[in-house]
Amino acid sequence: MSKINARILLEPNEVPKEWINILPYLPLPITPLINPMDGMPAPPELAFAIFPKECVIQEVSQERTIPIPKELRELYAQTYRPTPLHRAYGLEKDLGIEGDDIKIFYKNESVSTTGSHKPNTALAQAFYAKKEGLKQLVTETGAGQWGSALSYGCNLFGLTCIVYMVRASYIQKPGRKILMKAYNGEVHASPSKHTMSGRLFYDKNPEHPGSLGIAISEAVEHSLKRDDARYSLGSVLNFVCLHQTIIGQETKIQLSKVGISEPDIIIGCMGGGSNFSGLALPFMRDKLEGKLPNTQFIGVEPRACPSVTKGEYRWDYGDTAKKAPILKMHTVGHGFIPHPIHAGGLRYHGIAPIISNLVNNKLMTSSMHFQTEVIEAGLQFTRTEGILPAPETCHAIKEAIDQAILAKENNEKKVIVFNFSGHGYFDLLAYKEYMEGNLIDFELPSEEISDALNSSDMPIIDESKF
Amino acid sequence: MSKINARILLEPNEVPKEWINILPYLPLPITPLINPMDGMPAPPELAFAIFPKECVIQEVSQERTIPIPKELRELYAQTYRPTPLHRAYGLEKDLGIEGDDIKIFYKNESVSTTGSHKPNTALAQAFYAKKEGLKQLVTETGAGQWGSALSYGCNLFGLTCIVYMVRASYIQKPGRKILMKAYNGEVHASPSKHTMSGRLFYDKNPEHPGSLGIAISEAVEHSLKRDDARYSLGSVLNFVCLHQTIIGQETKIQLSKVGISEPDIIIGCMGGGSNFSGLALPFMRDKLEGKLPNTQFIGVEPRACPSVTKGEYRWDYGDTAKKAPILKMHTVGHGFIPHPIHAGGLRYHGIAPIISNLVNNKLMTSSMHFQTEVIEAGLQFTRTEGILPAPETCHAIKEAIDQAILAKENNEKKVIVFNFSGHGYFDLLAYKEYMEGNLIDFELPSEEISDALNSSDMPIIDESKF
Repeated sequence: MSKINARILLEPNEVPKEWINILPYLPLPITPLINPMDGMPAPPELAFAIFPKECVIQEVSQERTIPIPKELRELYAQTYRPTPLHRAYGLEKDLGIEGDDIKIFYKNESVSTTGSHKPNTALAQAFYAKKEGLKQLVTETGAGQWGSALSYGCNLFGLTCIVYMVRASYIQKPGRKILMKAYNGEVHASPSKHTMSGRLFYDKNPEHPGSLGIAISEAVEHSLKRDDARYSLGSVLNFVCLHQTIIGQETKIQLSKVGISEPDIIIGCMGGGSNFSGLALPFMRDKLEGKLPNTQFIGVEPRACPSVTKGEYRWDYGDTAKKAPILKMHTVGHGFIPHPIHAGGLRYHGIAPIISNLVNNKLMTSSMHFQTEVIEAGLQFTRTEGILPAPETCHAIKEAIDQAILAKENNEKKVIVFNFSGHGYFDLLAYKEYMEGNLIDFELPSEEISDALNSSDMPIIDESKF
Repeated sequence: MSKINARILLEPNEVPKEWINILPYLPLPITPLINPMDGMPAPPELAFAIFPKECVIQEVSQERTIPIPKELRELYAQTYRPTPLHRAYGLEKDLGIEGDDIKIFYKNESVSTTGSHKPNTALAQAFYAKKEGLKQLVTETGAGQWGSALSYGCNLFGLTCIVYMVRASYIQKPGRKILMKAYNGEVHASPSKHTMSGRLFYDKNPEHPGSLGIAISEAVEHSLKRDDARYSLGSVLNFVCLHQTIIGQETKIQLSKVGISEPDIIIGCMGGGSNFSGLALPFMRDKLEGKLPNTQFIGVEPRACPSVTKGEYRWDYGDTAKKAPILKMHTVGHGFIPHPIHAGGLRYHGIAPIISNLVNNKLMTSSMHFQTEVIEAGLQFTRTEGILPAPETCHAIKEAIDQAILAKENNEKKVIVFNFSGHGYFDLLAYKEYMEGNLIDFELPSEEISDALNSSDMPIIDESKF
């Protein structure tokens, strides 16, 4: 392969025509969303009051594929999809693995309009909300990638967008709120005084750093104020992971163009789990059909919030104030407020039930890294590949580098593919702190996790009643 | 044309194989670079001491095309070229010009590794410097697009990079210096205390906002300290405009894919003139060959620094401290310090001699706009096309919008093409100030220009002696 083929492109008319639904392929059925009021599976009417209707239908669909509406496909094609798949020649050279024994590829979702994979589902959710006649979507955001994407999507469809942004990120990443406002988004630092859920924390400490769990509570509460408003979630749920499968489908076609049908390792960072799912699930579907017996899947977490790596698989609230549905997932406890690491998108106490299902069935593994080592990997990537990654994405890069070095030490041939989920142009403070030697590491102690999980505040769900 | 073809892509192997050299096509010969020491055309030995040798050769070449070295072409292909050409359907709809009578296209250089057209020449200059055995390139930067690109290019080729950044931008755009440092660039606010040229201003006022003219003086002075260092310029000179012609060549192929062979209006913003040249010169070559008789070319300037629109065509120093070569160009005077508008890349007192030559021969025109109206146009673009433009790029957008509205009023059919030279993710303060109603307009009064141009400090060049 000549280096002139380092970027493998697809034409706009090659945007996939359907999403891959992993649910019918799972060895054990996916667990339902539980109504926090009665501990029973949420009936559709309840879910319809929270989320756009079409999304709720997709959440439980058992269809193997779900068609992407033509207008939406055209919008993807008009704006940024398909995205490029890059061979990381520069990084490979720097790692001393030149040659073709170990190949590192990355799917570059940073070229999207708002700089990450998030518009994939933002455009879909705004499209369905508009079609249903809704006027407003309300959401939370960590580092701001999701808030930017939904503000963008809502603006395109003439919907208003309200974003509760975790205060730690609101302060660390001031550019993000300006970008959201440029897209006509309305942004509030969370915890805020605008909701009851927010005031629980805000009144005690107006400078509370916040968490995704609290911001979700605020957004859900806000969305329930208006009949024509709905809550929009940028990760965790099945339909969100579904919308992201467009990533992995394109990647498969792109790899096949350079003669690769069986990648060895698929890597993505995990906060709620959507970007990892997006890349991994189309390959996982093949694995579950017996086609990719040797492919490994690794989701990467921060040591400050290792929901899968150190959490427990059990029922927990999706949010801090217990307003959102209860999910069966790996969790470090909904009451946990993670340290304000720069990878704000990974500060979620739980994970997508699809991921938990896969982990529980030993179909994938997880790993975790410190903040300084991931930013160091991100800087190495910037200097060798030219694109400065988001701190979240740095987790995937760190793991890809580690896996490449391991393969080299073991004299193994490996094709490593990771999801370059977003650029870090709004996260430069993380790099500044690292380069100046001021970046601090955080690790969540096991005792804190067991305290959180043993708290009387955890939900008790009787599955035999379903 | 279906909207699924709103982005017209080319494959990496379609990167042009040669640059278009406009010099042999010009109706009047291009004027030479003048040595500020003796007022005579700079001999090659002198130019070789300042710039990489191959660039000096290209500066005066009369070849109609110049081959792009294979390694460089592969590097473009590996990293970001060809870039997409977009049809601005969203913007067109917002302007009420739906249909195919008036079509707006933009060439999206913001997808480059560092977010603008600047790597096109940065990679070329670093490539030639490396080939010559040099170890360091020194440059100036306004808003930081050029400094980022050269830091990136130097780092790829193992060269050190020193950047003097205009202080107004250094303060307004803190992200840019972090990005340059991430690429191993060494960044100083200009005027600085590191050079004699800088100290002339720094000692009187350590908070002096600076100008491109002063920063060029500092960079040239710094580069002369070491035998293995050279000065690198990101605009103005013929060879820089040459390297950018890759933009227009791709655009021509992309337009032909949608059946357009004769665009009506070609637009680009102008600071030193390189991004405008990059898009325009391949079309201008055709015009000079009689092929595009009706195509108009418009370069767009800020009212705070309208070098072409309100300046005079005459000999002037390229920099404030008179260390760089003297050029025949439109200028508002080398002593002029423009207001600190956000479009830092457009704060240059002069313009590329190629542009001046074209203007003087009535082959193109210029226009100028206020800061608030261009940021307003940029915000309209963000909300309709999704990509937030750099303040420099907003000038081209404002002009494209004005031309589209004019065509609509006159019931004319027009194909308008502009260069989307860079994204504005590091320039968010401009948008914040605009949205909060705090953005201030500046206009350079005609008296100030005539004072500057009548100053005894202007060079007197006797062309009869050449």
